[in-house]
Amino acid sequence: MGRWEPDARGRLEMAALELYAEHGYDQTTVAAIAERAGLSERTFFRHFSDKREVLFSRGTVLEDLLTASVADAPAEATPYDVVAAALEATATLLEGRREIAPRRQAVIDAHPELRERELGKMTAWAAALTSALGERGVEPRLAGLVAQTGIAVFRVSFETWARGGATEDLAEILRDSFAELRNATVTSSP
Amino acid sequence: MGRWEPDARGRLEMAALELYAEHGYDQTTVAAIAERAGLSERTFFRHFSDKREVLFSRGTVLEDLLTASVADAPAEATPYDVVAAALEATATLLEGRREIAPRRQAVIDAHPELRERELGKMTAWAAALTSALGERGVEPRLAGLVAQTGIAVFRVSFETWARGGATEDLAEILRDSFAELRNATVTSSP
Repeated sequence: MGRWEPDARGRLEMAALELYAEHGYDQTTVAAIAERAGLSERTFFRHFSDKREVLFSRGTVLEDLLTASVADAPAEATPYDVVAAALEATATLLEGRREIAPRRQAVIDAHPELRERELGKMTAWAAALTSALGERGVEPRLAGLVAQTGIAVFRVSFETWARGGATEDLAEILRDSFAELRNATVTSSP
Repeated sequence: MGRWEPDARGRLEMAALELYAEHGYDQTTVAAIAERAGLSERTFFRHFSDKREVLFSRGTVLEDLLTASVADAPAEATPYDVVAAALEATATLLEGRREIAPRRQAVIDAHPELRERELGKMTAWAAALTSALGERGVEPRLAGLVAQTGIAVFRVSFETWARGGATEDLAEILRDSFAELRNATVTSSP
């Protein structure tokens, strides 16, 4: 175990996002990220498997939060409310990343393979939500529908928030979006 | 221009799916597909750019159908109804492919890179629906929400249908799924 580096992970992340913005994602090396953060490459690899994972490493933490929220929801909550609440908890946690979100999003938007990775992450979240609902006894098709829809609402909200311009919190945008979709559904033909 | 080959495209598609099932997708060559179909490799490449595109080439036709349906929908239809109707038109067209759908789905399910390609196609459909709604004057966020949700409902329905076991038409499964989601939304907390 190396010596303790206060917030090495956060420093590496900031350094990486700065370099991706300054020189481009493709041109940035792990060595350059470590140098900018004032840390060693060894320390980098203790936290991230490669420069791509700097952008995606929080995905698993958030996925665990999602499934834990679904498991902990009150027994009487409807599947739709359970999913909305789980995504709102995730949104609240993400709010601390408002400053870096637009920078991260710009890098992802510019690279098809990063967009695919982001999409794959969302698919994994939808699958995790579907099985967590299944464990609450929700019938598979309804679980899939509600989970996929929740993720669709989350994506639209997240992009509004992460592409900048919005002043509201992600959780607020998400609540508004769920309400907007509910409205769009209710006024549709039965 | 070579001599006319009756339904060369369909024959190549059937041959490819048979070979993917028999020997695996990775082991199948374009030469083997052409041979099984009784056609030349040259004919293959007149229809498909590579063996992967045999699985995905209808995607663009369906995307065009989606956007055309949105453009042609009655002015008074709500965005949600417009999207549901466009997806139902697509579902109806896909019904003719019920026989080969499970075979195609099995190949895709078994290959992460094909699953990504399928996911990318769905994302392209969602983007196309979003802009088609935008052209009808639907506000961007609502357009994104309704389009992404529609695609989520379509995916769940399509997988139910394509993985076999379901006896209903895809269009019926889709209508049921939209109704189920509507129900799940309406009974949620406001």
